[in-house]
Amino acid sequence: MSTRIDLNCDIGEGFGRWQMPADTELMDLVSTVSVAAGFHAGDPATIRATIDQAAGRGLDIGVHVALPDLVGFGRRRMDLSAQEAHDISLYQIGAVAGFARAAGTRLTHVKPHGALYAMASADASIAEAIARATAAFDHSLRLFLLDGRFADLIAAEHGIRVEPEGFPDMAYTPDGQLVLERAKQSWPPRQVAQRAVRMATEGLVETSDRSEIPVHARTLCLHSDAPNAVETARAVRDALAVHDVSVRALSHCA
Amino acid sequence: MSTRIDLNCDIGEGFGRWQMPADTELMDLVSTVSVAAGFHAGDPATIRATIDQAAGRGLDIGVHVALPDLVGFGRRRMDLSAQEAHDISLYQIGAVAGFARAAGTRLTHVKPHGALYAMASADASIAEAIARATAAFDHSLRLFLLDGRFADLIAAEHGIRVEPEGFPDMAYTPDGQLVLERAKQSWPPRQVAQRAVRMATEGLVETSDRSEIPVHARTLCLHSDAPNAVETARAVRDALAVHDVSVRALSHCA
Amino acid sequence: MSTRIDLNCDIGEGFGRWQMPADTELMDLVSTVSVAAGFHAGDPATIRATIDQAAGRGLDIGVHVALPDLVGFGRRRMDLSAQEAHDISLYQIGAVAGFARAAGTRLTHVKPHGALYAMASADASIAEAIARATAAFDHSLRLFLLDGRFADLIAAEHGIRVEPEGFPDMAYTPDGQLVLERAKQSWPPRQVAQRAVRMATEGLVETSDRSEIPVHARTLCLHSDAPNAVETARAVRDALAVHDVSVRALSHCA
Amino acid sequence: MSTRIDLNCDIGEGFGRWQMPADTELMDLVSTVSVAAGFHAGDPATIRATIDQAAGRGLDIGVHVALPDLVGFGRRRMDLSAQEAHDISLYQIGAVAGFARAAGTRLTHVKPHGALYAMASADASIAEAIARATAAFDHSLRLFLLDGRFADLIAAEHGIRVEPEGFPDMAYTPDGQLVLERAKQSWPPRQVAQRAVRMATEGLVETSDRSEIPVHARTLCLHSDAPNAVETARAVRDALAVHDVSVRALSHCA
Repeated sequence: MSTRIDLNCDIGEGFGRWQMPADTELMDLVSTVSVAAGFHAGDPATIRATIDQAAGRGLDIGVHVALPDLVGFGRRRMDLSAQEAHDISLYQIGAVAGFARAAGTRLTHVKPHGALYAMASADASIAEAIARATAAFDHSLRLFLLDGRFADLIAAEHGIRVEPEGFPDMAYTPDGQLVLERAKQSWPPRQVAQRAVRMATEGLVETSDRSEIPVHARTLCLHSDAPNAVETARAVRDALAVHDVSVRALSHCA
Repeated sequence: MSTRIDLNCDIGEGFGRWQMPADTELMDLVSTVSVAAGFHAGDPATIRATIDQAAGRGLDIGVHVALPDLVGFGRRRMDLSAQEAHDISLYQIGAVAGFARAAGTRLTHVKPHGALYAMASADASIAEAIARATAAFDHSLRLFLLDGRFADLIAAEHGIRVEPEGFPDMAYTPDGQLVLERAKQSWPPRQVAQRAVRMATEGLVETSDRSEIPVHARTLCLHSDAPNAVETARAVRDALAVHDVSVRALSHCA
Repeated sequence: MSTRIDLNCDIGEGFGRWQMPADTELMDLVSTVSVAAGFHAGDPATIRATIDQAAGRGLDIGVHVALPDLVGFGRRRMDLSAQEAHDISLYQIGAVAGFARAAGTRLTHVKPHGALYAMASADASIAEAIARATAAFDHSLRLFLLDGRFADLIAAEHGIRVEPEGFPDMAYTPDGQLVLERAKQSWPPRQVAQRAVRMATEGLVETSDRSEIPVHARTLCLHSDAPNAVETARAVRDALAVHDVSVRALSHCA
Repeated sequence: MSTRIDLNCDIGEGFGRWQMPADTELMDLVSTVSVAAGFHAGDPATIRATIDQAAGRGLDIGVHVALPDLVGFGRRRMDLSAQEAHDISLYQIGAVAGFARAAGTRLTHVKPHGALYAMASADASIAEAIARATAAFDHSLRLFLLDGRFADLIAAEHGIRVEPEGFPDMAYTPDGQLVLERAKQSWPPRQVAQRAVRMATEGLVETSDRSEIPVHARTLCLHSDAPNAVETARAVRDALAVHDVSVRALSHCA
């Protein structure tokens, strides 16, 4: 029996005059996209154009909720209360959902971005607040987080499903945390591809101290703001195909 | 047979540390509120708190879409394309709608704010763009505009209903345009009340040159950022009652 | 010999449509003001009007540099690098200095606001970064900080003077840190006045556990965003006068 | 006797994560730069890095004051009052001047950007307001405008010098106005170079209807946000050299 994995990409991370060049090509290589919602990137026109493209390809479309920090691209931790995390999440979910509706489709998931992702992956109260906003909007939305540690809590309290994610293009600390890069650097595509295959087939990743830790990912994330994002995505697709891993969006996987 | 009119108020026009003091009292005096959506005023926490209060009172709740201009409170005209007007409207409608859904209710209408209102009331392409965003989100939403001049066009093209509005607390030019105030000034409550009654019962308003023009309003707007907003709203309510005009939200009027 | 103290107030903390009502009256009660610079509050028009008023009164005028967080009023900690703290400080110092120059005067000091103040008072690298920006702009500017712990370092490296501050209207922890209030609450004016007198005459403050700690303040700060700010400032002025403490700006004290 | 011209470039037009790739190379090809000041582009870190590079090369450095519109890149006209135009100009001049001072240099000029440039070039009250802010900051600053129509007025009232500009990479209407491009398009470098030479040597430009109009430019502007900005600047430099036109900053030309 062949293995399946979802391949997702952060997308729409331009802002007004500044646009990310790789988005269109990346959308042909992934099964799922998470669209920037205006707080770390993404103005209304960019969101509309991005959603229209993604909807036209039948991709799973989620909203990439972020801290209100354009200058820092949402990658600087801020001391938000859980209530504030809830409020900014609900605002961004709704804003992007409107464009999905106008494009004749619906959102499939919510994913925190950057520093908010790190906060939600480590702090139950932040994860819970984002889950509460997600569930209040639509119980069928899935929540992407770094791992499954809060999955049972969130399923019990809010009735929504947490989908743990793997990051083949980022470093892991030995205790399973990600090493954030303020501006995503180029990684060798071959290396990212090998890590993606191991995550998908063995559920393992090599950490920054060369040990190995388990990664139970249902979806793998690639960064669209890496300078070699398209080349890397192609290498990952090719390597997954070679290892008989099919790429399929989570909404198609029951 | 008694006359009926809707009484609406712009609301939630604080931002973070800066809050408008009159909102709670005003919500007890009107039948409909239009909630600031983050572009001229209104941060996520303010939107949530405002919607929760309005939903608890069973008011009709709309979204007050605005130009992206916090410093100018959305009252400075900007050269947006029709597509940009569409995109910022859809973003704001969705963002506020999420909070309505979380509060167990739904939006009833869309109303442009300030300079965008003036633009939409005079320029068919802007009105049409906002109507297109409104219809794409939800065909049952009504669109509040200064008058009915684009109502047939919008009904035909987008299937949504335009509700013409009257402004008892603002000056009209002889050709029926509003005179915008950058910071809403206090008007004598008695004068506003008399104008409201005339609009509701006779469909007339006195203009800046003391002539009279017809105003076919289905809803009357009061400004929450006037220094004497609550006193004025009370005077209007009392005067309407004296003249046997009942205040009822449009969603209750078929 | 009579005691002297500087009395300073944060000021210009409105933004566009939202203005703080107490500023004008407060300027008649203090010797020094710190003007919001656009990052937590203060748009260009507000800065100009505020500086013009302060310059007309001959007050010492400083710039209140803050984290880029309008929604949070600069009171939410953000993970900025020291270089970023330097850059945002230099930007804000220059921006406000231009209005001082246009008003025929010069800035006297730099004061971090809110969360940046707490960061600068506890973390030498942040304090040093703000000092570096201050010195690069003008060596004669003083830097207001919570205490003198980094004063020698900053004097040695950047040649500028640190002025330790006292906060009669805020709670101190037993280890001398401030307890931030997201929205400044009303404190009894009489209590604030008594604390101000003790700070000025005895160099002592009572902490949250009712112990006493030394406070070597050269300037005392009052918050303009407290609901009873004017009443409190009057009470402080009166109490200082009764205890023969004269209020004088630091630039007049050599 | 050889002809001389200043060659200027808008620069520092990135924002946080989004940076313009051509800046460093362009700084080797021009004599003068105008640095984005945070309102249409340019965050504090970008301003610092840009000014440091420009100062290291000994270029003339000005501030590119703009409307507060990041999403629209300052290219959407807004209805600002003259006082507001003054206030935003003074704020931005001061902010950028601080970085120049920290880099051991001083600003040489002020240049409005995008829609504000168009407004200042057509409306005397806006031009005058920017000139007033410029003069209040430093009388020795020059003001770059499209032509000299307000030069005498500004010199008389504010004692500062207007430097008329030529735009070899933009279309002129027959009445001498520029045709703004929301996102600067690539023009053939050879064509831009020929237009630059004609402007510098003959004082003429061909308009959009193929007529010719006079352009009395003391400085020629090249857009750094054109996709082929570096190639174009090289072609202009080469063509000017071939025609014996030397490129020299205005501060070196008395």
